[in-house]
Formats: sequence, C-alpha cells, structure tokens
Amino acid sequence: MSKSIILLGATGSIGVQTADIIREHENDFSLKGFSAGKNMEVTRKFIREFHPEIVCVQSEQDAIEIGKEFPEVSVVHGDQGLIETATYDADILVNAVIGSVGLKPTLEAIKLGRTVAIANKETLVTAGHLVMQSAKEYGAAILPVDSEHSALFQALNGEKREQASRLILTASGGSFRDSARADLKDVTVKEALNHPNWSMGAKITIDSATMVNKGLEVIEAHVLFDFDYKDIEVLLHRESIIHSMVEFHDTSVMAQLGTPDMRVPIQYALTYPDRLPRPEAKRLNLAEIGKLHFQEMDYERFHALKMAFEAGKTGGTMTTVLNAANEQAVAMFLNEEIKFLQIEELIERAMHNHKVVSKPDLETILHVDAETRKTVKNMLK
Amino acid sequence: MSKSIILLGATGSIGVQTADIIREHENDFSLKGFSAGKNMEVTRKFIREFHPEIVCVQSEQDAIEIGKEFPEVSVVHGDQGLIETATYDADILVNAVIGSVGLKPTLEAIKLGRTVAIANKETLVTAGHLVMQSAKEYGAAILPVDSEHSALFQALNGEKREQASRLILTASGGSFRDSARADLKDVTVKEALNHPNWSMGAKITIDSATMVNKGLEVIEAHVLFDFDYKDIEVLLHRESIIHSMVEFHDTSVMAQLGTPDMRVPIQYALTYPDRLPRPEAKRLNLAEIGKLHFQEMDYERFHALKMAFEAGKTGGTMTTVLNAANEQAVAMFLNEEIKFLQIEELIERAMHNHKVVSKPDLETILHVDAETRKTVKNMLK
Repeated sequence: MSKSIILLGATGSIGVQTADIIREHENDFSLKGFSAGKNMEVTRKFIREFHPEIVCVQSEQDAIEIGKEFPEVSVVHGDQGLIETATYDADILVNAVIGSVGLKPTLEAIKLGRTVAIANKETLVTAGHLVMQSAKEYGAAILPVDSEHSALFQALNGEKREQASRLILTASGGSFRDSARADLKDVTVKEALNHPNWSMGAKITIDSATMVNKGLEVIEAHVLFDFDYKDIEVLLHRESIIHSMVEFHDTSVMAQLGTPDMRVPIQYALTYPDRLPRPEAKRLNLAEIGKLHFQEMDYERFHALKMAFEAGKTGGTMTTVLNAANEQAVAMFLNEEIKFLQIEELIERAMHNHKVVSKPDLETILHVDAETRKTVKNMLK
Repeated sequence: MSKSIILLGATGSIGVQTADIIREHENDFSLKGFSAGKNMEVTRKFIREFHPEIVCVQSEQDAIEIGKEFPEVSVVHGDQGLIETATYDADILVNAVIGSVGLKPTLEAIKLGRTVAIANKETLVTAGHLVMQSAKEYGAAILPVDSEHSALFQALNGEKREQASRLILTASGGSFRDSARADLKDVTVKEALNHPNWSMGAKITIDSATMVNKGLEVIEAHVLFDFDYKDIEVLLHRESIIHSMVEFHDTSVMAQLGTPDMRVPIQYALTYPDRLPRPEAKRLNLAEIGKLHFQEMDYERFHALKMAFEAGKTGGTMTTVLNAANEQAVAMFLNEEIKFLQIEELIERAMHNHKVVSKPDLETILHVDAETRKTVKNMLK
C-alpha cells in the first residue's frame, strides 16, 4: 500500500533527503503536496518530478507565477497556505521546516488525527506540551525524524516505557569540539558551518557548534518520551555511529547504530513500524571504523547545553524563550552582525530577563516567541 | 505473579547466577526444582534456601543420602532423574547444564509445551533442528540465555524477522586474543582459564580461548534465529560491552550493551517480555570506558571458528561431531592429556573422518555423539 506524504520544508536539507526516500521507493510513497519557501528552482523540479496536488510557496508573487506554469497544481502561499498544505488529506505529514514557524500547521494537522513525522524540533521545544496533549486528544501519532530521537524511538520499540530508566543522547560535539572555549571568540561563519560528521542545513550546523542543538534535542526527548531531565544524559561520542541509547531498569542498554545518514531516520518515520530496504546505502562497518570514543560532557565548555537543561527544568515559556532567542541570534551570526560566543550570551540574557508563564496556551507562546526575537534583535543596539 | 523455575545445572556458573536472580527477586520467582551433578555442598545449601520440590543428583549414592537428610524433597538421580526434573510441572525450565547431556531432558520438556531458557548451547548445536521443530510443534518458547543471543533476541524484539538482514556476534577474543598462533603451542591450562572479561565455567572459558565457543554461538544463532551462515558475522570487540547486534535492511543496526554480567541475560530470559529492576547492579558508563574497539575476525588465527562455520554450512550430523569432538578434546586438555592446539587438531580430524547424515533423528545424533567421543579419545593412542 502506497502512503501519501505532505512535506513541509521540501527545499531544506531534510526536505530534499525526504524526497530522496520517496524517489527510492516510488511504489511505497507519493508526494501529494509540499511547501518550499523561496527556492523556485527546486519547487519547479519537484512539481515536475512528483506531480503534487498542492504546493505552498512563501510569497504571493511566486505563487502566481508557479500557478500559471502548473495550472494542474493548487498553489497556495504564506502562513495560511502552509496550514492549508499541512492539513491537506494525506497519510503522513512530514514537518521539516526550520524554526517555530512549523508550530501552527503541525497543531492543525494533529487536530485531524494526522500522523506527523517531525524533524522540526523547534515546534516541540517551543510548545511541546500543546503538541503532545493534542496528539493524545486527537489520536495522532508523532514520529521523530531527528537521528537521535529516531534511535531512542527504535530502542524503545517493543519495550515498556516504565521499564526504561534513562535516555542517553549522543553528541558529536559539533564543528568546534576540539577547540577550547577561549578559541571560540573569533571563529568565522564559514568555520562554524563545517560539521565533522553530518551534512545539514546552516541553522542546525551552527546549533551543533554552539551545542544549542543538543540542548533542543534534550528538551525534544523530554517532550516526546516523557523522561525527567535528571534521567536524560548527553554523552560526547565523536563518531556519531551510536545515534542514541536507552537504558532499562535491568541495566540493559539498547542502542541504534548506523553510518551518519539522515535518510535512515527519515525513512523509518515514513515506514514505521516496518523497515524498507535501502540496498544502495552504505552499511555500517565497525571493523573499518575501528574505535568508538565516549567522553563525559563538559558543561562549562558547552555552556549552552547547561542553559538548555535549565530552560527545560524551568519549563513553561522558558523553552520558547530559549528557542526564539537562539533562532534570532543564529540569524544575526549568519548575517555577521554578532560573534559566535554572543549567540550564547544573547540567549542567556533573554532567559534571564524573562518572567516565566507556566502551562502557556498557543497565543501566549506565539507572543513570547515574537517578543523574544524583538528583544534579542535590539539587545546590541 | 510469581514464576516457578526448574533449573538444570544449578551448581555451575550459570546455575549459581540464576539462583542469584531468584534470590534477588523472591516475590517474582521460586526455585521449584534443580539438578546438581556432584556438588553436594551447593545442593544442600540450595535445598535449605529455596525449598525445592524435586532435586536431581548424579549418583544413586548421593540421592539416597540427600533423600534421608531432606525427606520433604523428592530426590532423583542419573539421566532418568534429569528428565524427571526437566519435565516437573513449572513455568520455566532453565537448561544450564554443560554439554550435550542437556539434550534429552530439553526435548522432553518441550513436548510438554514448556518455556525453555537455554544456556546449554551444545543442545542447540548438536540437535538444533530437532529442538526448534519440536518447539514449533508443541508451542514451546525457546529463550536464549547466552549474552550474545540474548542481545540478538532483544535487538529483534518488536521487529519483523524478514526485515533483518544480518546478525553481528561480538567476540572478545578470549584468553589468548593478543597471542600469535605460534605462541599457543605450549600454553597451560591455567593460562587458558584466565578470561579477560567474563567470569565463567572452565569448559566455556577454554572454548573462548580456542574460539570454538564463538563457533558454537554462530551455529546457535543460526538455529535460534534462522539466518543463513552468510548473514552471520563475527566481530572482534575486546571490551564485551556491545553484546551483539542485528542489522536491518534499512541499514539500521540495533545493539544491546551492558557491563559483562551474565545475570542480565539470565534475568531477561526469566522475565521476557518484561524487565525487572536490578538496582544493585553496575550500570554501564561508556564515558568511564572511553573507547570501544572493533576488529575484523582473523580466520587463520582463529582456525576453530572457520571449522565451526564449515560444520554449520555442512549441517546434518557435522555440528554434532564438532561439538562432541570439542567436548572430548577440552576434557582431555583440562586433564593435561593433550596440548592446547591439539583441541583444534582433534576436532578437525574428527570432522574430516565423518560421513555426514543429513536431517538426523535423535538416535542417530546420540550415536554419532558417542562414537565421536570414543574416536577422539583414542586418536592419540
């Protein structure tokens, strides 16, 4: 049985790799719709290749143009168009947009009981309690796409949640794992974009370098799997071969391993509870790799990870602030408006200034998100 | 609900550790019966502690004595007594005897539909097809106790067999993993008994040093999980932390890890599909361990492993010959009648001289087993 897919964020790194999976398994999947932001080249290519029924672009201008070129496709645009696309009838919604813009469309799809494969961790970080509550209420399955969370999900497969005692997220350490803190002062955007193991988009590569990404993942793991923060551990593992682990209360540890290839967890989210062959993909060869390294996380060196744990433990709107401040700060760094270590500094200041609202509703979250971005933007003025 | 257990081989290494688990979880398990061979000290201790209903010892003399001392216990002896104990009404039969003596009692228990936790790999190697056929016919569950097979079993949990593509058994390399083949000529029994990671009985420790143990495990894995030999790989992994792995056809690899402690897989077989807490046990700390090493298996250096693969691929009575020749040769080595490398040599000669019978029945297997022992015993005369 072929599954129809709606893909939000089709032109990003996860989006393009999701398209790879659909292409590799044309009898198993169809791309029924997608959103594409501003990249009209990929938009055209994907329309020609996958023949979707609905496509969302960012600007009205682009929508008009694409609509004329492809009259058989329903072309929508903007925030409303994104919701329309997300809720378009299909088997699975893959949310691979970057940033908290993915929140509203996800919540609307959940209300329809839609299965959501979520690569958009900011949605879970900024409003995890709303997403999981709605998913429960409307019987929607939330499937992780992040390699670490997919690993945890696979390790928990066939097990009882209450017999699991600890989540162990592995972290490669990012672009600057071998640099001392003092060396980070003057690193360039180009240096920060050079991730040792994973080929990913710009925002997440910077997040990996600051270790904010691992912090967001800790919060995401807490949200998805309902573990206390004290039972979530981050382990430095340079090779990114063990993608994460679950310890059970009999001391057994289950791990998922593989070569670093995002298409594996993407595909698993699309095929769960089954697995489809990937005959062309590189198989893991541990003898060739020879050694796997593990090291305790240094929370002084990776200060942002400590802040993320604090934001998570504080809860309420604090994780929204962490995420929004980070998104704003990373944009400013990529734009060469601030230095690398200032990303952390701006997040810390935003968190420090924030008065937490507990159990916030969607309106409050969106308000805090917008306010935080504004504050961070003006912090250095 | 408490589970009642019959334990064959209670005074061996696995037997004593099974008793530890029952002791740790007295509300979950009871020891309803056990067999004890010749060790009357442990037999008395276990009767006093666990109050079993039936106990089997090897000799009639011991049976009479123990029977007098504990008139409330039904004391049996010898081969017939072992079958009587194995088939005594209980929830689980743990077969932890050493060698192919465990075969007949296991087959009889299976005929009653009994769940069998099997640590006695020789039974599966010598007559795997009979055991698995009977288990299927009588609806008896066969649960692995060996740490490697428990790891494979856990990695396959919740998955579909046909979506798994490869079993990866890890091997520590045994007592002589750092010795060249030429250095093995004159090793002593004491040196061979010094295993780097696992605390086990004498026979299995020698089997680890010769790598025959890993060979038996390969055959056991083939029997238990129905994988072709070409899809079973052995990987040298010095630390014995990853206990084994399963690769799936999407390239994902699931692994079970832990500190080397046989009580974890023993307990898992008793609690499956659940897990019980072991709050006192040492938890895995990968940061403390620092590095895990992996290395391709050298089949020239570990010639016995190659022979085991050959025996497995040949099938029929050849695995019976491998196992019986090995049991006999190891006994002779422990008795200082032969040198270390002669274990391999005697096995090879026995295999070479054997005319394979395919799909052998129990009688044929027992005949080949006895003949092989006799042949090997007289080989050096």
